[in-house]
Amino acid sequence: MLNVLTPEEVLRLIEMAFPPRRAVGMRPLDALPGETLAEDVAASEFVPDFDRSTVDGYALRARDTFGCSEAIPAILPVAGSVQMGRKPDFTLPPGACVAIPTGGALPDGADCAVMVEFTEDYGDGTVGVFKPAAPGQNLIFRGDDTRPGDVLIRAGKRLTASDVGALAALGKTQARVVLPLKVGVLSTGDELVPPDRTPGPGQVRDVNGPMLCALVREWGFEPADYGRIPDDEALLSETLSRAAAECDAVLVSGGSSVGQKDAVCRVIGSQGEVLLHGIAIKPGKPTILGRTPDGRPLVGLPGHPAAAYYIARLFVRPLLARLADAPYTERRRTAVLSEPVAANHGRAQIVSCRLEETGGDTLAVPIRSKSGLITQLARADGFFLIPRDCEGLPQGAAVEVILL
Amino acid sequence: MLNVLTPEEVLRLIEMAFPPRRAVGMRPLDALPGETLAEDVAASEFVPDFDRSTVDGYALRARDTFGCSEAIPAILPVAGSVQMGRKPDFTLPPGACVAIPTGGALPDGADCAVMVEFTEDYGDGTVGVFKPAAPGQNLIFRGDDTRPGDVLIRAGKRLTASDVGALAALGKTQARVVLPLKVGVLSTGDELVPPDRTPGPGQVRDVNGPMLCALVREWGFEPADYGRIPDDEALLSETLSRAAAECDAVLVSGGSSVGQKDAVCRVIGSQGEVLLHGIAIKPGKPTILGRTPDGRPLVGLPGHPAAAYYIARLFVRPLLARLADAPYTERRRTAVLSEPVAANHGRAQIVSCRLEETGGDTLAVPIRSKSGLITQLARADGFFLIPRDCEGLPQGAAVEVILL
Repeated sequence: MLNVLTPEEVLRLIEMAFPPRRAVGMRPLDALPGETLAEDVAASEFVPDFDRSTVDGYALRARDTFGCSEAIPAILPVAGSVQMGRKPDFTLPPGACVAIPTGGALPDGADCAVMVEFTEDYGDGTVGVFKPAAPGQNLIFRGDDTRPGDVLIRAGKRLTASDVGALAALGKTQARVVLPLKVGVLSTGDELVPPDRTPGPGQVRDVNGPMLCALVREWGFEPADYGRIPDDEALLSETLSRAAAECDAVLVSGGSSVGQKDAVCRVIGSQGEVLLHGIAIKPGKPTILGRTPDGRPLVGLPGHPAAAYYIARLFVRPLLARLADAPYTERRRTAVLSEPVAANHGRAQIVSCRLEETGGDTLAVPIRSKSGLITQLARADGFFLIPRDCEGLPQGAAVEVILL
Repeated sequence: MLNVLTPEEVLRLIEMAFPPRRAVGMRPLDALPGETLAEDVAASEFVPDFDRSTVDGYALRARDTFGCSEAIPAILPVAGSVQMGRKPDFTLPPGACVAIPTGGALPDGADCAVMVEFTEDYGDGTVGVFKPAAPGQNLIFRGDDTRPGDVLIRAGKRLTASDVGALAALGKTQARVVLPLKVGVLSTGDELVPPDRTPGPGQVRDVNGPMLCALVREWGFEPADYGRIPDDEALLSETLSRAAAECDAVLVSGGSSVGQKDAVCRVIGSQGEVLLHGIAIKPGKPTILGRTPDGRPLVGLPGHPAAAYYIARLFVRPLLARLADAPYTERRRTAVLSEPVAANHGRAQIVSCRLEETGGDTLAVPIRSKSGLITQLARADGFFLIPRDCEGLPQGAAVEVILL
C-alpha cells in the first residue's frame, strides 16, 4: 500500500523535510538582472575620480566675476579649452578662463564653472561673464558621489538594470549572487521517444521532459535535461544517482505501469529515503517524494502529462521555492463555475478549465476530456481544486482558478 | 534652439510616428515560454496514435465478464502480456485476457480494460474478474484527444510551459513566434572606457552601455551592444548606420558636451529625420528622437547615467512597447512625501527616492545627491515626477512612485 498524504500534509512535509539550500557564485554584468546579490557591494574607488564641470561653459576663479552684471560683464581672456577624457595639462592663468564641456576635468587653479548661457564670446579671445559665480558652483568634486568603502548595494537585493549601471560605474563587471537551483529532469518509460521522432506502434512522445524543463525555467531555476531512460532499473538508478550528485533537486516523471512505479520508488529509495508515496489527489496519486542523505529532494511524478503538470504546479513549485528560500505568488482568479462538477470521494480533485468573461463575472468552464493528454494543457486557462471531502460543486459555485 | 516638447507631447509623437514593426521566426521548444505565437498550431497526427489502456490490469472482451460478481467471478486464462512501447503482435484469443499496463496498446480482439483492483490472480495462469466491464471501458481511443487539423493553440497566445508540453506531444519541436525587437545600444564620448578598465585622468567608465542593455533585456527585447564610439562624427555615423540596418531601434547615449550633442543630432538626422530635440524634463532635456526612412527609431539619450536611465524608463520603454505592439504596466506605488521638494519651473522634474514603510503609509524619501551619478541608481527604490507647472510639492503630498 502507498503511504498516502493529503495535499496539506504534503506541503507541511515539504516545509519540515527540506531546509533551504543556497549556493553562491560570480555572474557577469549581463546575467545579473533578476538575481539576488549574495554580499554587500562597496565602492573601492572615488566616483567621480576627478573634479568635473556639470555644465558647458567656462572654468574660472569665482573671485574674478565678483561684482559683474549684465551691464558690466567681467571680461576674461580664454586661455584654452578642456578636452573630454583628458586631464588638463595646464594651470588656469590668473584672471583668465578656459572653455570646459559638461563632464570635463577642472584645470588646476579654477574653482568653479559658469554656464555658457551667462557669457558672451566676443570673438577676440575674450568672453564676458554676466553673473557673479560662487566657488564650487557647477562642479562635482572627486568622491562627491561615492568614496572607497561606501556600501552601495546590500546583500539580498534582487538586482535590476539600475544596479548593473551602478556596478559598471564602480568597475565591477561581475557580482556574487545566489545561484539559481539546478533541477534535473528525466523521463522513464520504454514507450517514450524524443519529441522530434515519430512514435512507432505503441510508442508515445516524451512530453514531460520538455514541459518540466520549461516549468523549471519559468520559475527562475535552471533545468538540466537528463533525457529519457528506458525501463531498466540499473540504468535508471545510475542516471538518478548522477543527476542527484549534479543537481539541487531531481524530477523523475513516468513509471505509468505498476512495475515502472515500483522501480522509480525503489530507485529513489536507494538514493536515500522515500518520504511519501502517494498523494490523495486526482490526477496525480502515484507521486513519490524522496530525499538524499544531504537533503536534495527526488520527486517521482506521474507519467501522464496533465497529471505531471498539475502535481508540478501544486507541489514541486512550493518545494523548489522552499529550497531556494524564495517566496512566490501564483497568479489566481476567482471565477464562477459554469456547470456542476462531480468529484471523487476521498481524494482532492483537480479540474482544468477555460475562463470566459461575461458581463461582470468570470466563468470557469470545466474542460471535459476523456484522456486530457494534450487538450487540457493546450486549451485550459487554469485549474482549480475540489477538496477531498466534497462530493462535487454546483453550478454557480465560486472557485479559485490557478492560471496556467 | 532645441525643439522642446513636453513629456505628454513626446508620448503622443511616439504613437503617431511609429507603427508597430513585427518580425516572426521559428524558435525551438526551450526558447518558447513567454514568446507570442505567430500562427495557429494545428495537430498533424492522431493523439494518441493507438488505442490505449488508462489503467493497470487486463485487456479483454467485455462480454466475457457480463454477469460476473464478487461471488461468481469470471475466470479467464491469461494469454500473455502487453509490453510498453510495442504494438502487441498477437490477437486476444476468445475467452481469454492479457495483462496490460497503463498506457499499453490494446491488442486486437480486446474491447476494454479492467483494473487490477477488480481482479484476482489465481497463480495458475488464470485470473478472476469480479465486476462486469463495459465495452470501451478504461480505454483512450486513437484520436480521442486530438485529430489532424484540430487547432490546439491560437496565434497571439503568450506561450507557457503547458504549451511546450502540447507542442512536444504533437512532435513540434519549434514554433513560429513574434521575434523580440532587436535594440542596438551604443555610447559616445572620448572620455569613456569599458567598465572593466580603470579610467585614466579625465576618463570615466561607460555605465550607460551595460545599463541600457540590461534594461532592454529586462523589458523582454534583445539588446545588441555596439560598444563605445569616440567623438569622431564619421565613425559615429558609420556605426549608427550599421546598427540601424541590423536592429529595429537604436539607442545612442552620451554627447554630454555641446559639440557631442550636435554631432549625435546631425548623425541621427543623416540617417533619416529628427522628430524631436529636447524634452521639457529635468534631468534629460537633451534627448533626441529620430526615425529612419523605414520607420526605425533612433534615440539620443543623455550621457549622465541617471538621466539616461530615467529617460529610458519614461520614453524608450513606451516607444519599444509601441513598436512591439506589446502593452506593459509599470510597477508603481503610491507614497507620501517625507519632506518638501522644490521643482524647476517650466520643466517636469524627476525625483529619485527611497521608500520607507511606516505604520500604514509608505514614505517616499527624496534622495539628495549633488551629482546623482550612481547613488541615485544604486540606492533609490523608485522615482516620481513633479509636473512642469508645479513649483514643488509639500511634505505629506501623495506621489506615484515608479519602482526601479
